[in-house]
Amino acid sequence: MSSGFLLSFEGSEGCGKSTQIALLRARLEAEGRAVVMLREPGGTELGESIRHLLQHAKEGAAMTPETELLLFAASRAQLVREKIRPLLESGTFVILDRFLDSTTVYQGIARGLPLESVRAINHFAIGGTLPQLTLVLDMDTATARQRIHQAGRELDRIESQPQAFFEKVRQGYLALAEAEPARVKIIDASAAPEAVHESIWRIISTHSHAV
Amino acid sequence: MSSGFLLSFEGSEGCGKSTQIALLRARLEAEGRAVVMLREPGGTELGESIRHLLQHAKEGAAMTPETELLLFAASRAQLVREKIRPLLESGTFVILDRFLDSTTVYQGIARGLPLESVRAINHFAIGGTLPQLTLVLDMDTATARQRIHQAGRELDRIESQPQAFFEKVRQGYLALAEAEPARVKIIDASAAPEAVHESIWRIISTHSHAV
Repeated sequence: MSSGFLLSFEGSEGCGKSTQIALLRARLEAEGRAVVMLREPGGTELGESIRHLLQHAKEGAAMTPETELLLFAASRAQLVREKIRPLLESGTFVILDRFLDSTTVYQGIARGLPLESVRAINHFAIGGTLPQLTLVLDMDTATARQRIHQAGRELDRIESQPQAFFEKVRQGYLALAEAEPARVKIIDASAAPEAVHESIWRIISTHSHAV
Repeated sequence: MSSGFLLSFEGSEGCGKSTQIALLRARLEAEGRAVVMLREPGGTELGESIRHLLQHAKEGAAMTPETELLLFAASRAQLVREKIRPLLESGTFVILDRFLDSTTVYQGIARGLPLESVRAINHFAIGGTLPQLTLVLDMDTATARQRIHQAGRELDRIESQPQAFFEKVRQGYLALAEAEPARVKIIDASAAPEAVHESIWRIISTHSHAV
């Protein structure tokens, strides 16, 4: 049996995460790996309820940044213990669509909550279950926003933030990759989807337990 | 205008909290105080949604203790910023039916989560808005459980815990009162409701801003 592998994808809205996850998943399955994709927040029945609360709260008198962070952490604590750990133990390749770094970047860096508290809460939520590899899909903010608007659907609470917010998110991810170079890798996501996929595949192939 | 006052009630299930809150509220209003009672978790629209999640999750494959703690903290963060702080600023006497000490005692002491993490998360959630006074309604565990069963309704997830859990809760509260004697006071709740109320009133009367 293969060893389990925990991979998280990160990046701004519009960076092409869903496409890349689908391409990677298909290739891993073609190689004979058991693959499960989980999204954050959500991935469990309870987590999906929390996801609903987070996406549909109104701005203003409604959700405070502290509340938002704690709800993400609650969803994560559940996902780790109910799904991720048993999957890894059974040798599954687990792909996470966002994980703890989203909290650090969105709530800590972009919304300005104290980073020390954010780290303590993240640590409590994951209890040591850190991804072996985290891929940040990076592109310039203007292009990412253009892609969101081209999709033509109604924007959610996070997608409606001003451009400055997205710029902070981008810089936050770049800083994270500098701070943890062994785990966090930046992928240039402005190329064609197949080319981005090949960059991702090259990085994953270098990890002994991945494929 | 009077100054605001923040009072929290704590204690095991069956200790008579609801009765004492009702008696105190009536007396404060008779003295001309503006009083608002808020319950934990809940007290805001978002908090009530979280309360629903907490009460209706099944045991077992379902909610982990870490998730439970983070959901309580999320509800608390919202309550503090959306309701408690504005009420205190307008001079209101705020009575809380449970607050941060419930998390310390139920999740930290009774369920065994690391107390250091519990304190860090509580601190992040309340952001300095600590009660001026916390009253713990204390009685022996057997009597409290008898009262719950006499009420004749279906027990919720916490009420269904074994007796040893309630004993840990009781000892947790007693330890808290020893650690923070200026803020946390133990009230003998085994007496008749009117006598318990008089003990509570005597303590509150000694606080300059309370009445």
